[in-house]
Amino acid sequence: MQQCPKEYVEFAHCLADAAGDIQRRHFRQPLEIELKPDASPVTQVDKETERVLRELIEQSYPDHGILGEEYAPVREGAEFTWVLDPLDGTKSFLAGMPVFGILIGLACAGEFVLGVIDQPILRDRWLGANGHGTMFNGVRVHTRQCSALSDAIVFFGKPYDTKIAKLHPQVKWARYGGDCYGYGLLASGFVDGVVDADLDDHDFVALEPVVRNAGGAVTDWQGQALRLGSGDDVVAVGDPRLLEQVLKHFGRKS
Amino acid sequence: MQQCPKEYVEFAHCLADAAGDIQRRHFRQPLEIELKPDASPVTQVDKETERVLRELIEQSYPDHGILGEEYAPVREGAEFTWVLDPLDGTKSFLAGMPVFGILIGLACAGEFVLGVIDQPILRDRWLGANGHGTMFNGVRVHTRQCSALSDAIVFFGKPYDTKIAKLHPQVKWARYGGDCYGYGLLASGFVDGVVDADLDDHDFVALEPVVRNAGGAVTDWQGQALRLGSGDDVVAVGDPRLLEQVLKHFGRKS
Repeated sequence: MQQCPKEYVEFAHCLADAAGDIQRRHFRQPLEIELKPDASPVTQVDKETERVLRELIEQSYPDHGILGEEYAPVREGAEFTWVLDPLDGTKSFLAGMPVFGILIGLACAGEFVLGVIDQPILRDRWLGANGHGTMFNGVRVHTRQCSALSDAIVFFGKPYDTKIAKLHPQVKWARYGGDCYGYGLLASGFVDGVVDADLDDHDFVALEPVVRNAGGAVTDWQGQALRLGSGDDVVAVGDPRLLEQVLKHFGRKS
Repeated sequence: MQQCPKEYVEFAHCLADAAGDIQRRHFRQPLEIELKPDASPVTQVDKETERVLRELIEQSYPDHGILGEEYAPVREGAEFTWVLDPLDGTKSFLAGMPVFGILIGLACAGEFVLGVIDQPILRDRWLGANGHGTMFNGVRVHTRQCSALSDAIVFFGKPYDTKIAKLHPQVKWARYGGDCYGYGLLASGFVDGVVDADLDDHDFVALEPVVRNAGGAVTDWQGQALRLGSGDDVVAVGDPRLLEQVLKHFGRKS
């Protein structure tokens, strides 16, 4: 496993600090909303956050690649690539619900080595990095044991996805509306799984290292490792023994 | 409309302060969980909170009635009745998700005159009282205008309720997992509606005055006023013009 150099851990904290300052300033304030081609909303906050993150990366690591949700990729094929979802959960942000987050991922030669999930209103931050474990607000955290789906508390991203709708009665408690915050709660051992449909790279490159470095596992619905460019349905579990049970439900690709 | 004496507004703040102290102490700590006959979880936090609230009421208003979720009613038929859900959203509390809340309602001769929704981790409190408006953290708030369901951001309590599942594609953005916090966001004008199935008195006696005193409207799915003892499906809107559109979907009882 590719280790994450410590300087990138420190730099990722700086990025999340800068992004949080912007989002705290705009939370619950009037905003212009545009709709993207997929009808999802985007605001000046998404864009301003990503611009600031890109500037900081350009200043410190001008040879690193950047893949962000709101602007075009730069230096594709660089050894290190920062993968940014500046405001994951824009609908929650606009509804005044503080479960949205800043997602910052780092990939090294395609391998995910660092992830940050930051909720700037609650000032909650998970940072997981290969070789450094996962920290929640500066304290090392671990996923919890839960080997049976019928004992599991699971967040579902899209309740009306046909396959998700069939899975939810099999878990102990189904939860909804967690956005990226649910993955943090998974890393901290408060819940046992998250099942999401149609995530893209900007989301999961940050989420995966947070969960994995806390002891959990993250794959697509066929049990395959997530890869840059694969944009995919995602299952994340705290206890790797749960994974098979969820994958069985979804059926692996032949 | 029955006005709410100012001393009860002040007393309700004291109740919420005391409840919040308990819940902040236990949040994300190990807890014993019991399951109630309906399979919903209850913890020592639910019970301790309700005991403390009852003691405070007994000390200050020994002739008032108390209707709480975890213990038997006292002095049913009293002029004033405090209606308590000490920890609404126990599943969210146990999942580490800070959208649960302390719900405190006051009914006078059956009429709802005061409600508190308090989220003790975020330290967010909505208090609505007849004659006093609705305050969010000490600032007067109002619902926002939104006259068309297709423009509305709506929280849904139970995504898989058959009738709710048919309503959700008609709104602009459907949100889930809001618990009582969604009603607060409605009062503050960040969202346009909340649709919930199977609420009981302990929930809605607090929720209704918060929404109504901010300019919104709350009824059951047939458009009838909520009453003590009616335990019911609930629709809450920020703009009363939305109400008819939601009620038409549910169809009124003949």
